Amino acid sequence: MIALAPLSLGDALAEVSADIDARFDTLLSVPDDPRRDLYAAMRHAAIGGGKRLRPLLTYATSRLFGVDRDCAGRAGLAIECIHVYSLIHDDLPSMDDDDMRRGKPTVHKLYDEATAILAGDSLHALAFEVLADPETHADPFVRSELVLDLARAAGPAGMAGGQMMDIEAEKSSFDLPTITRLQAMKTGALIACSVEAGAILGRLPAEGRAHLRGYARDIGLAFQIADDILDVEGDEAAVGKKLGKDGDAGKETFLSLLGLPRAREQARMLVDQAIAHLGSYGAEADLLRDIARFILERDR
Amino acid sequence: MIALAPLSLGDALAEVSADIDARFDTLLSVPDDPRRDLYAAMRHAAIGGGKRLRPLLTYATSRLFGVDRDCAGRAGLAIECIHVYSLIHDDLPSMDDDDMRRGKPTVHKLYDEATAILAGDSLHALAFEVLADPETHADPFVRSELVLDLARAAGPAGMAGGQMMDIEAEKSSFDLPTITRLQAMKTGALIACSVEAGAILGRLPAEGRAHLRGYARDIGLAFQIADDILDVEGDEAAVGKKLGKDGDAGKETFLSLLGLPRAREQARMLVDQAIAHLGSYGAEADLLRDIARFILERDR
Repeated sequence: MIALAPLSLGDALAEVSADIDARFDTLLSVPDDPRRDLYAAMRHAAIGGGKRLRPLLTYATSRLFGVDRDCAGRAGLAIECIHVYSLIHDDLPSMDDDDMRRGKPTVHKLYDEATAILAGDSLHALAFEVLADPETHADPFVRSELVLDLARAAGPAGMAGGQMMDIEAEKSSFDLPTITRLQAMKTGALIACSVEAGAILGRLPAEGRAHLRGYARDIGLAFQIADDILDVEGDEAAVGKKLGKDGDAGKETFLSLLGLPRAREQARMLVDQAIAHLGSYGAEADLLRDIARFILERDR
Repeated sequence: MIALAPLSLGDALAEVSADIDARFDTLLSVPDDPRRDLYAAMRHAAIGGGKRLRPLLTYATSRLFGVDRDCAGRAGLAIECIHVYSLIHDDLPSMDDDDMRRGKPTVHKLYDEATAILAGDSLHALAFEVLADPETHADPFVRSELVLDLARAAGPAGMAGGQMMDIEAEKSSFDLPTITRLQAMKTGALIACSVEAGAILGRLPAEGRAHLRGYARDIGLAFQIADDILDVEGDEAAVGKKLGKDGDAGKETFLSLLGLPRAREQARMLVDQAIAHLGSYGAEADLLRDIARFILERDR
């Protein structure tokens, strides 16, 4: 294991944000042909926004095992491609119908629906192109494992399935176990995949990943509860999108089912539990611990 | 090389169709939870329709190298996942706005737009999950190469980019080289990938694939010209979708640019050229030769 200097959360956030922006800038350089708008739409959605929580998790986990910085950056880029594509599609009029995202107009508002659908589809494919490229890792087994894990997290047993359940949630009245499962799929699967990618790059055998998986599951749920709280209590200007939509749609959330005090308490407990999962690691896991705490404190 | 008994085109078409239907039936078994409609929508689009030209090409190519039948079937399934997802998204109101496909209502007509978008997204992810699964091939290098090739064919430099150019074609007046490039991306890339997948599974080194790539490029273009001719001359009941839309939209096609006699002649020449690329193969490539001829003769 290579000993790495400790990294503050602030520095890591800034470093990963700049790194992912630079990678998107290269990946999405605009061709001089009729696909101009497609690339411009992807750039609009992908560059200069978001917390880059997922690439940060991949980076922080991969640091535990002394993984090459560029490998972690490429895996983080692929995961962020999936995240950005899901935001573009979720914002569409037939889905959540949002006009604003990260303080900017959504892709279908700035361009049109066809361009937004194709921009999402393009980022979806690019994610797997990035992962399967030998530049991401010299060992094809590692590349293949990364692809398998991300495809499962993105598909109908993960993110896409969770979004379908979320749409059904407006018609039905889901109970707490169903909402927990919905959120574990919709946002939890990709967060778990971000941590898992770091472990795969670090060649940690699957049997040794239980603690990291526990950490990822707990911060994923805490993240969603914090999101529900932000949706009710947050500042629209800071968050950069329309808030209060779940309540307006009569959709059950952690907040509507638990009430604010219990929801806050539950999120805090999950963060403590996530940190407890890291007990076998020393100071090298401080960044993962800081990320867990940050999930509660963020205002956007 | 394992000597295989010759296989007639009719038998191969029937065998591959039944195989792909059975694989989709397993892959898309409907869960007993709120994702029911998502899976039902995928099954509606994926099962019991289409010529399965792409899996047939993978199978026919892989037979040249004595590849295990199940490996070829799984790779063909993944490619067909991408093809079906592209049909679902292309049919959406904001794209080609089609009500019928393969003689059945399109997914967004039978369900709704959100379900159609998520069904396409789910099939997109499933394609890569199938390829990266160790069951597809024991060698992770082969799996990783299959993923890389399919991701490139599906993304903004392939199918999704071609569909974007096709949308732009309604606004601009493209010339023959631009239409050729558009079609090479929109339909050619996935057809080329279907042949390439057979070569990857057969462990044919990249340097040895020039003939097969030539074959794939030529049948891809011939396929598109035949499609343009069908769009004007075909029988809507046989084809199972609305025809004549390109002409109505004032979109340039091979047919509008070349005229019917020259388009027919061009397609015939491309098929002859495709077959000529197979000159170094003996009777084991007869199925690929028959597929090239079939592309001109099909009525749907």
